[in-house]
Amino acid sequence: MHQDKPRPASLAVSRRQRSTPYTPRVEALGVSDYSIVNHTVLPKGFGRSLEEDYWHLRQHVQIWDVSCQRQVELQGADAARLVQLMTPRDLRKATVGQCLYAPLIDQDAGMLNDPVILKLDHDHFWLSIADSDVLLWAKGLALGYGLDVQIDEPDVSPLAVQGPKSDALMERVFGAAVSDIRFFQFAKLDFRGHPLVVARSGYSKQGGFEIYLDDSSLGLNLWDAIWDAGQTLNIAPGCPNLIERVEGGLLSYGNEFTRDNNPLECAMDAYCSGDSELDYIGKNALDQIRAQGPARSIRGVLFDGGKTPPCANTWRLSADNQYAGQITTAAWSPRLKQNVALGMLEKSYWDVGTRVRIECGDGSQRSGVVTALPIN
Amino acid sequence: MHQDKPRPASLAVSRRQRSTPYTPRVEALGVSDYSIVNHTVLPKGFGRSLEEDYWHLRQHVQIWDVSCQRQVELQGADAARLVQLMTPRDLRKATVGQCLYAPLIDQDAGMLNDPVILKLDHDHFWLSIADSDVLLWAKGLALGYGLDVQIDEPDVSPLAVQGPKSDALMERVFGAAVSDIRFFQFAKLDFRGHPLVVARSGYSKQGGFEIYLDDSSLGLNLWDAIWDAGQTLNIAPGCPNLIERVEGGLLSYGNEFTRDNNPLECAMDAYCSGDSELDYIGKNALDQIRAQGPARSIRGVLFDGGKTPPCANTWRLSADNQYAGQITTAAWSPRLKQNVALGMLEKSYWDVGTRVRIECGDGSQRSGVVTALPIN
Repeated sequence: MHQDKPRPASLAVSRRQRSTPYTPRVEALGVSDYSIVNHTVLPKGFGRSLEEDYWHLRQHVQIWDVSCQRQVELQGADAARLVQLMTPRDLRKATVGQCLYAPLIDQDAGMLNDPVILKLDHDHFWLSIADSDVLLWAKGLALGYGLDVQIDEPDVSPLAVQGPKSDALMERVFGAAVSDIRFFQFAKLDFRGHPLVVARSGYSKQGGFEIYLDDSSLGLNLWDAIWDAGQTLNIAPGCPNLIERVEGGLLSYGNEFTRDNNPLECAMDAYCSGDSELDYIGKNALDQIRAQGPARSIRGVLFDGGKTPPCANTWRLSADNQYAGQITTAAWSPRLKQNVALGMLEKSYWDVGTRVRIECGDGSQRSGVVTALPIN
Repeated sequence: MHQDKPRPASLAVSRRQRSTPYTPRVEALGVSDYSIVNHTVLPKGFGRSLEEDYWHLRQHVQIWDVSCQRQVELQGADAARLVQLMTPRDLRKATVGQCLYAPLIDQDAGMLNDPVILKLDHDHFWLSIADSDVLLWAKGLALGYGLDVQIDEPDVSPLAVQGPKSDALMERVFGAAVSDIRFFQFAKLDFRGHPLVVARSGYSKQGGFEIYLDDSSLGLNLWDAIWDAGQTLNIAPGCPNLIERVEGGLLSYGNEFTRDNNPLECAMDAYCSGDSELDYIGKNALDQIRAQGPARSIRGVLFDGGKTPPCANTWRLSADNQYAGQITTAAWSPRLKQNVALGMLEKSYWDVGTRVRIECGDGSQRSGVVTALPIN
């Protein structure tokens, strides 16, 4: 068995691994770890421990360069038709100003991505994507189906402000209007004469905002304005925190699920319309899976035995000497004083409380228990 | 101006940044740098300098984990039709056993990828891709156009053997049949009872092979067999070498060109059919560009002033105080004792011998000269 003990390797530098408008500040602040999402650097650490970052995120406010959440822009007469074709989520009653988390699936109901869709106008959408080239999927469909829609990746680089002091910080930069933005809604707020899409959203459960900067040349100004306003709020540079996201049950495309999974396995039932009138790609396949019930599902797993390495591969789960599923992300929780993990559990073993054995990436065998999400 | 002096940052570990069948050996041999291509790790260094690796590659033989060259498999009645739709290269006379370098373009003639296409059978192709999700493009087109073709990413992980001693090494592992394989052809050769696609190809100009391992469980056996057979040939673990690839004029999607470029700008005229009978996506746009002539083109650039950092962004070129183009990849050549670079030169400045000024990533201004490719 391969053991997940990768040597620390540097990320090789090239233009292909795209920098962002905020990269100079991120690097000046001592970024220590990068990931690559959508061909773009995502800061993943600033030299502090995951645990320190976790506590800070839960108590203060952080600024995250999430430019890697690239936008796939659909605009034109058939934009609404195309975006509905791409997702089982019913978008017919979506309103301008709404953010909609939505699974994207292929004709076999395999997951292709799970973006947040921003409805900018009745014929204008941004898909704020996870790590796959949805642009190519949308372009292929539009060309093949002969749809009247312009598809592009615009110059939009989201910057996230996350943590319990987010409202206080954002009001200092954007004014009181910030407090009127409801969860998963956006407004256009002025930044030095330039209207920016500001949404109450983000990849943590600590509250916060995502600012969709649509002019790279303003990147450093925007960063600095937030940074300066946050000095008395104990602001720190941050990133999606592995511990916090596992506890919060926030999934990651390519980690928790891939094209091999359908949305019902990913606990996305609420985003899969059962309306027989609604037309979308993968509908027949999804209807069939729904009728049979999914064969596996995302769950939490808790286990002891000390800290683990991060998951470079899936870790096998077993129970009664049978395959019970796989862990996809794991981290040590300093709050719960045990490891918290996300995994895909087979139906026979997915009940909360089921005891499982974990073939950990460090070669050890651990004993754990299936738990509900989020992990409180 | 942003200066390209990124702090050394580690690559964050996650399942999403996929390991390969060879990762345990790569890590045991001390990989020091990774890049991400197609959501998969690509080793980019083993603790030696680029210059040491360059000389070794030119003199001996290296084993490269290029599993990140994922295959997009097209199979079925309409497979040949789909692959021809995707490229301006005329595939009508392609033969089974042939490897074909081919630009993939969209309806605006924008580059989407530049795979090597392997014709496995008249209705069966692998597209060995650069860094974009061609799978989604192919799937979108097939669905929209209603084509009868199965599209998937199979369990295929290419392993490259590169360098002047490649033939000697490969004959030790696969027998004398290796020598019959012509450039950009492949054969199926036996490895311990398992037939593997072996092509004379690779991302260097030093000669060599790519082995398309189609069973991950054989990965360590294959690596070990090559490694052991190479001990008396001074084998080393390696990777595409930046200096060698710049000198050789080998382009990289996402570095030298993007969707903003057309294939005529990328010196791919030979792979763009002018046959009016041939039907492919982007034909009208490409015909128009051909009629006008491209506005810019890939060239080499030579410049002094000591070593440069790698290109984290494009570097602006100017001449006569005008914008002259951009450098996309640069490295110090220990053989030529100057910097060698690839760039996109505007038409007015693309003549060999043109003097240009370079806004280097380290903040310095350098003086250079446009040169032909490859750089000898």
